[in-house]
Amino acid sequence: MKNNELKKIVAKEAVTHIKDGMTIGLGTGSTMRYVLEFLGDQVKKGLDISGIPTSESTAELAKKFNIPLTSFKNVKKLDIAIDGADEVDAHFNLIKGGGGALLREKLIANAAKSFIVVIDKNKLVEQLGAFLLPVEIIPFGWEVTSQKIMDLGGVSKLRQLENQPYITDNGNYILDCDFGLIGNPPSLEKSLNSITGVVESGLFINMANKVLVSDDSNVQTLNNILIKEHSL
Amino acid sequence: MKNNELKKIVAKEAVTHIKDGMTIGLGTGSTMRYVLEFLGDQVKKGLDISGIPTSESTAELAKKFNIPLTSFKNVKKLDIAIDGADEVDAHFNLIKGGGGALLREKLIANAAKSFIVVIDKNKLVEQLGAFLLPVEIIPFGWEVTSQKIMDLGGVSKLRQLENQPYITDNGNYILDCDFGLIGNPPSLEKSLNSITGVVESGLFINMANKVLVSDDSNVQTLNNILIKEHSL
Repeated sequence: MKNNELKKIVAKEAVTHIKDGMTIGLGTGSTMRYVLEFLGDQVKKGLDISGIPTSESTAELAKKFNIPLTSFKNVKKLDIAIDGADEVDAHFNLIKGGGGALLREKLIANAAKSFIVVIDKNKLVEQLGAFLLPVEIIPFGWEVTSQKIMDLGGVSKLRQLENQPYITDNGNYILDCDFGLIGNPPSLEKSLNSITGVVESGLFINMANKVLVSDDSNVQTLNNILIKEHSL
Repeated sequence: MKNNELKKIVAKEAVTHIKDGMTIGLGTGSTMRYVLEFLGDQVKKGLDISGIPTSESTAELAKKFNIPLTSFKNVKKLDIAIDGADEVDAHFNLIKGGGGALLREKLIANAAKSFIVVIDKNKLVEQLGAFLLPVEIIPFGWEVTSQKIMDLGGVSKLRQLENQPYITDNGNYILDCDFGLIGNPPSLEKSLNSITGVVESGLFINMANKVLVSDDSNVQTLNNILIKEHSL
């Protein structure tokens, strides 16, 4: 089965979790593109929902598919958030941020009662870290922040776009960091968060309630029994 | 002695710590204004130094007083950083950020071998917390971030300027947070840093090497024996 087909079937499955009246966090990325498309179909058929997008690009897609949007001005919590991931391990830890939207994605996942991750089987790993870990940092003094991350044992590289630093939706930079295979993701997450200049890392520690994994014609649902609905 | 006089004498004392050839982190605030003025006098007399400012307003003042500026593009570390504080406790913990520049101030203090804090006696407290704790946060979803801070036991209020949210030099918002007297500043600092959406708090935990305190005609120097020069 082709990669795009894997993305489509898991996207279709994810949309079945969305019910009338829900507020939804809308993730970013190639799988989410299909989720938004299928969700748009349901809205056309009368499904009454509203979403908060995790990026400007998702906001544009949502508008294209006529998905009503809202903001945290109007809602304090979300019923559900759906998003992709770059890597998922067996402890429901994720690496996210390949698409550059990790901060809003994390904020929205945190604000949701239930966080559903949609991936194809290629994203399941034994240990996180083959995918470079994105870390969002403040542009001012980024050289100092980068050095502090190197001091933790990582090799960090400023993400570039057309020979300029890549700028996130929040006006920040991203360092793509190679820590090798990450032995203790919760500990690394804490260390990164304590560095001045680090806004947020792409490590999502035990935040996902469900991971939907597409594997050929099947979608497998992994339920995280270690967390229930997020307390809000 | 008037408040401004207290600020002047401690500023004068601080400048004696600056030697030829040093790179200097230049803090922000009313006491720092005098430091910059006195430092400008020394530069006029031939002192060869360069500074990195912690704010746009300090950058402007430095230019006015002909203090040469540099950036982290050119230097990886600073010999010294000098800055004011809103409160200082007996454990060399500070609250900073009344002026809105806490993030760059913290980054610069972290990048300096020695961090010198200049205050008048009115800023010395037994326990931090009478001064509202500034916390710099990402504008997106600030309502969610504010709620998470309230969940820690604080009452947080969005800083405003002319009926609009106050915007930091990094494009972020500031929440002024009332936690009452803060029993365990290091623990609160960690909890705040772990909240998605929090960029940095105004708690500076055991970062100051020296605190210079002006009390009438005297300047007292408190040496922090628990840290030596910062490892860089």
